[in-house]
Amino acid sequence: MKIITSVKSLRHTIDKFKGSGKTIGFVPTMGFLHEGHASLLRQSGRDVDVTVLSIFVNPLQFGPAEDLKNYPRDIKKDELLAKKENVDIIFYPSVDEIYPTGFLTHVYVDDLSDRLCGKSRPGHFGGVATVVLKLVNMVDPDVMYLGQKDAQQAVIVRKMLQDLNVPVKVKILPTVREADGLAMSSRNSYLSLRERREAIVLYKALNQAKTLIKNGERTAKTIVLGMAKMIQEESQGIIDYIQCVNAQNLSVIDVLKNEVLIVLAVKFGRARLIDNIIVRVNE
Amino acid sequence: MKIITSVKSLRHTIDKFKGSGKTIGFVPTMGFLHEGHASLLRQSGRDVDVTVLSIFVNPLQFGPAEDLKNYPRDIKKDELLAKKENVDIIFYPSVDEIYPTGFLTHVYVDDLSDRLCGKSRPGHFGGVATVVLKLVNMVDPDVMYLGQKDAQQAVIVRKMLQDLNVPVKVKILPTVREADGLAMSSRNSYLSLRERREAIVLYKALNQAKTLIKNGERTAKTIVLGMAKMIQEESQGIIDYIQCVNAQNLSVIDVLKNEVLIVLAVKFGRARLIDNIIVRVNE
Repeated sequence: MKIITSVKSLRHTIDKFKGSGKTIGFVPTMGFLHEGHASLLRQSGRDVDVTVLSIFVNPLQFGPAEDLKNYPRDIKKDELLAKKENVDIIFYPSVDEIYPTGFLTHVYVDDLSDRLCGKSRPGHFGGVATVVLKLVNMVDPDVMYLGQKDAQQAVIVRKMLQDLNVPVKVKILPTVREADGLAMSSRNSYLSLRERREAIVLYKALNQAKTLIKNGERTAKTIVLGMAKMIQEESQGIIDYIQCVNAQNLSVIDVLKNEVLIVLAVKFGRARLIDNIIVRVNE
Repeated sequence: MKIITSVKSLRHTIDKFKGSGKTIGFVPTMGFLHEGHASLLRQSGRDVDVTVLSIFVNPLQFGPAEDLKNYPRDIKKDELLAKKENVDIIFYPSVDEIYPTGFLTHVYVDDLSDRLCGKSRPGHFGGVATVVLKLVNMVDPDVMYLGQKDAQQAVIVRKMLQDLNVPVKVKILPTVREADGLAMSSRNSYLSLRERREAIVLYKALNQAKTLIKNGERTAKTIVLGMAKMIQEESQGIIDYIQCVNAQNLSVIDVLKNEVLIVLAVKFGRARLIDNIIVRVNE
């Protein structure tokens, strides 16, 4: 396993692999890796010859009042996990390597970036789109792997790459959860013991929604209110949003049909947690 | 020479060339080709194996009150010129092929896009950056050729590709001029006979600036005022801007030193003409 910190050395290494006909898989992350990331790395290992993992806490996607400075980091632990998952290259650049002095270019996916998390995190998805495009151009992968946990991010990145005609395949893999159902997230490390206990209500609420739909409920408002009630009764979490949206374009749904993405963001102390499920609605 | 209208067929053809080890040169244009474009195609012919010419009048870079509808088009004449210059592929897509329904992604180069022409054409350079990135991703060229006549466009496109880590070499070739000095431009076709005669004052003014600098003048304001005086006295052109700027970052220069880009935009009837020269200032 190689750890590479410069773009130039990364290009050189990738070019050598490509020159000998190897296929490349890419898993972009902000590090502090968990089993969710591991599942992406394992899938890449099954699909392609060479797996590239990037670890970069991207300042462009943090708002001024957000947790850039305190975002959890543990490169030593990340290296161990990467090695265990047979990663070939860790790309671990500095901020200056990605955004040299005088950097001016920004990528933005209209509409999709302004919904859901985009409302409480203005600029966030512009920062995500910009860094992912840069990383994809550096790594030039055949396949990129993202987690369904960040549902909006997955929709936006896929749309950006399609709109800009970037020839890379994107695979979105299922959310990996703790034994009690909490979606794995680097930000779970922010939770106090009490918050950690309470946070299981998010997945419980998503499952309640699923059961309601299975039993015939088709009104988004009823489902959302039911979830909100459960979260408020069973935790001190502060709801940012709970919504039923179209899984492709994130537009708000009033009456459920086809493929519905149920998404939520709830604050527990300084951890803003997100989670979602996709429900296929029978007519 | 192949004329290709779909992205899919373009990718397929390029992939075949690349598969057999051919290098690709790319000349993006809005058509209505003239000797300026021909000089780019000839350079590509000298540098690489396969020359791709795109002809696409990009709606995204026209303002609502601008000349999108009346922009001159003549695909038959363009084909003849392309054939003469040994173009291998003309990529001639429809607007829907480039911007399918639901297109949402935009690329913007801050600061550089807001100066000079960007002031009177808000959104213009965002449209340019977005379409050039798309076309470069489609064609995947080794080298792209642009004309120095569109100096600001060249600076912005080069910066955008660098910022986004797109591995393409950009060559900027000198402005090609008519015998009397007028910079070649598809928009020259808008000029009436009188306007055409008067428009030579632009190059004359640029040359006057050059002479002033050669004779020791270092104050930008003096140079600009001299140019404005000449243009006003010898034509009915309406000056949009005349400026001395840093050739790399387009920042305004007060006292001339190093490499100076002298740029202007002047309206003659419905033709908004631009021109520029680069002057290396001896200390």
